[in-house]
Amino acid sequence: MESFFEVKRPDEVFDIIDRITPVKDEIIPLAEAANRVLSRDLTAPEDLPGFFRSTMDGYAVQAKSTFGATEALPALFDLRGEVVMGRAAAVRVGEGEAVRIPTGGMLPRGADSVVMIEYCHPLDAATLEVSRAVSPLENVIQPGDDFRQGAVVLKRGRRLRSQDAGIMAGLGITEVPVFRKPRIAVISTGDEIVPVEQTPLPGQVRDMNRYTLGALCRNAGADPICMGLCPDDFDSLKTTVEEALSQADSVWISGGSSVGTRDLTLQVFETLPDFQLRVHGISISPGKPTIIGTSKEQTVIGLPGHAASALVVAMVFMTRLIARLSGHVGPVKPWGGTVAARLSRNIESANGREDYVRVKLIETDTGLEAVPLFGKSGLISTLVEGDGLLRIDMNREGLYQGDTVRVVPFDTAEGGLP
Amino acid sequence: MESFFEVKRPDEVFDIIDRITPVKDEIIPLAEAANRVLSRDLTAPEDLPGFFRSTMDGYAVQAKSTFGATEALPALFDLRGEVVMGRAAAVRVGEGEAVRIPTGGMLPRGADSVVMIEYCHPLDAATLEVSRAVSPLENVIQPGDDFRQGAVVLKRGRRLRSQDAGIMAGLGITEVPVFRKPRIAVISTGDEIVPVEQTPLPGQVRDMNRYTLGALCRNAGADPICMGLCPDDFDSLKTTVEEALSQADSVWISGGSSVGTRDLTLQVFETLPDFQLRVHGISISPGKPTIIGTSKEQTVIGLPGHAASALVVAMVFMTRLIARLSGHVGPVKPWGGTVAARLSRNIESANGREDYVRVKLIETDTGLEAVPLFGKSGLISTLVEGDGLLRIDMNREGLYQGDTVRVVPFDTAEGGLP
Repeated sequence: MESFFEVKRPDEVFDIIDRITPVKDEIIPLAEAANRVLSRDLTAPEDLPGFFRSTMDGYAVQAKSTFGATEALPALFDLRGEVVMGRAAAVRVGEGEAVRIPTGGMLPRGADSVVMIEYCHPLDAATLEVSRAVSPLENVIQPGDDFRQGAVVLKRGRRLRSQDAGIMAGLGITEVPVFRKPRIAVISTGDEIVPVEQTPLPGQVRDMNRYTLGALCRNAGADPICMGLCPDDFDSLKTTVEEALSQADSVWISGGSSVGTRDLTLQVFETLPDFQLRVHGISISPGKPTIIGTSKEQTVIGLPGHAASALVVAMVFMTRLIARLSGHVGPVKPWGGTVAARLSRNIESANGREDYVRVKLIETDTGLEAVPLFGKSGLISTLVEGDGLLRIDMNREGLYQGDTVRVVPFDTAEGGLP
Repeated sequence: MESFFEVKRPDEVFDIIDRITPVKDEIIPLAEAANRVLSRDLTAPEDLPGFFRSTMDGYAVQAKSTFGATEALPALFDLRGEVVMGRAAAVRVGEGEAVRIPTGGMLPRGADSVVMIEYCHPLDAATLEVSRAVSPLENVIQPGDDFRQGAVVLKRGRRLRSQDAGIMAGLGITEVPVFRKPRIAVISTGDEIVPVEQTPLPGQVRDMNRYTLGALCRNAGADPICMGLCPDDFDSLKTTVEEALSQADSVWISGGSSVGTRDLTLQVFETLPDFQLRVHGISISPGKPTIIGTSKEQTVIGLPGHAASALVVAMVFMTRLIARLSGHVGPVKPWGGTVAARLSRNIESANGREDYVRVKLIETDTGLEAVPLFGKSGLISTLVEGDGLLRIDMNREGLYQGDTVRVVPFDTAEGGLP
């Protein structure tokens, strides 16, 4: 009854996704650059900072004039005015001379260091007592200390963080080359599905996947395009998929819980130009009947119809697809962000299949406890009541009560799994 | 020289932030609800699902008619047609009768269970052989299995996830009551600061904080309003702050690295109606001179001028301020999401002060290593080259090489610290 397909392991699927070509790039204003992925290496057009700056409120001096100064035997300096913020000082600091300088002020010519204000005592308008020696460059940052002119500051493929926006601002980079945001067309199929505004008749249910998958796309850095509902027939689905491909970088069809509809999605995909079937089934639960294909440069995806299964598959695989389409190089979540917890009960799992179990995390006196939420397939409440996903490896036949497990919290999973 | 202020511990500051009043609420369309914070408890207006549904492709039957059926001794059933997706079946299933049903199909009246297709063998158009017994409700989900009518589905104060959008869709909730996105006015002060488009003269630097703090606001769920640059004088700053308060829920002034400017921020705050100084100095590094005050329902914040210090303070405290303004109840990052690593070298830290050290995470044969990035204050490159923040508790005088430490990756920190 089931059509034959060669089920792939999750790691094989990740490898396939990692080879997907990113979308084109574009130039955007700096204020919009955070969270986007850089499409070219950025080099520093100038030194940052561009001049010697004080890191303290104090007095700019020549360090050698302070040598030997102590509280018992302070050194005396001639006061030569002060540095005004944002301006080059007019004076030159000579031996035995001092100029008042604020934090961030530009060091006057001649000076090589700053004595903190705590160790300076003006005796009168013209004379300063210094009770501590400084060494050259003490309390001073030099030109290029942040980045030297010509150095690669940020690499192609990096997802830009808030501080990266800061460094670009500091270097005067106002226009940023990034990959376009991938556009994901989301199609819900199923003759039983009605739009959310509609009251379902007996046997009908409202469209959830439009909202769950749309939100996940946004969280993972893509722009969802809602194609709406499509009835379960070949011609309608083909027309909708072609329309979607004219607007999107990737088309996701959710639906086809029943064998007939599942075949329909693939039949439509097979009519697309240069269609290549990359994945037809993944050895995971939930989500086994997932389809991944390409038509030229575009990816077409068949997801399960059940909202919970579709969302779990999207968290595990589609966030990575979005990362690769976005040009993101390297691990999607390099440092994990999983949480350790003690399993509250035994869980069985079929060998040869990776299981994603929804768990609730509960604080106990002896640490976090992970409580598996089992529900019949088709329920979404396990995802709403749960706090995260627990993965059971392919070569395990289950986990035991008391085992220490690692859970990916849902708010982390939405941006991509570690 | 330093004006006296009573420095608060970070936990005291968190308590103060936690008592801040959320902004008003609004009603938004479901498609925009993900990541927003719910302003009212949502109850299920109806049962979900609304009818008995099959979770399998198979045959709907009365369970008792299958009792005793085995491969060796199958039970025989009269075929009575099939259930069409999205419609109520016209037939009623009686004893010894079976109706073909797809996954997600509505159970016909009379039937109480579904036999998986694998155990069913049609002998001819009218007769079905069943080789396995089912119990009542097997392979069936019941009305209300996800949520019962009247049950609280999602609670006030919850930051909505993708699956929450799904459950609202399933229940037909198209308009969602949420707290407004907090509006944060960001003002950069400092006579040395020039706009990013401008080439700095000697002694001048470009405005970074506008971009770093703006990006952090967005990542934490707020709308930044850029007020631009403000010179270091009382009248200009007062005018700009008043203008900002007419548009925003919270006003953040970054700048004032030098003592004089720092006092200026507080002097301006003190002229605001019903001004209350809540925090004047926090025992952390970087970020000690941070100011938190309120003017009626609005919060006013003085942040350090150095981009790196301002961003660290914003990650530690301002993400929490945004969460509370957003009406988010409970822990901002309930399950942490920190990463364990081995410290590469000793770090000193002053007792009585919480230190936030930027670290690079390096994969080694023996696990992750955290390498502290020390740089003179005022450098932002430590944040760009680093992977996360390591906190040294107040009552520690440092950490030793080889200690296992927990690091908050920057991409997690941007949405709020655990």
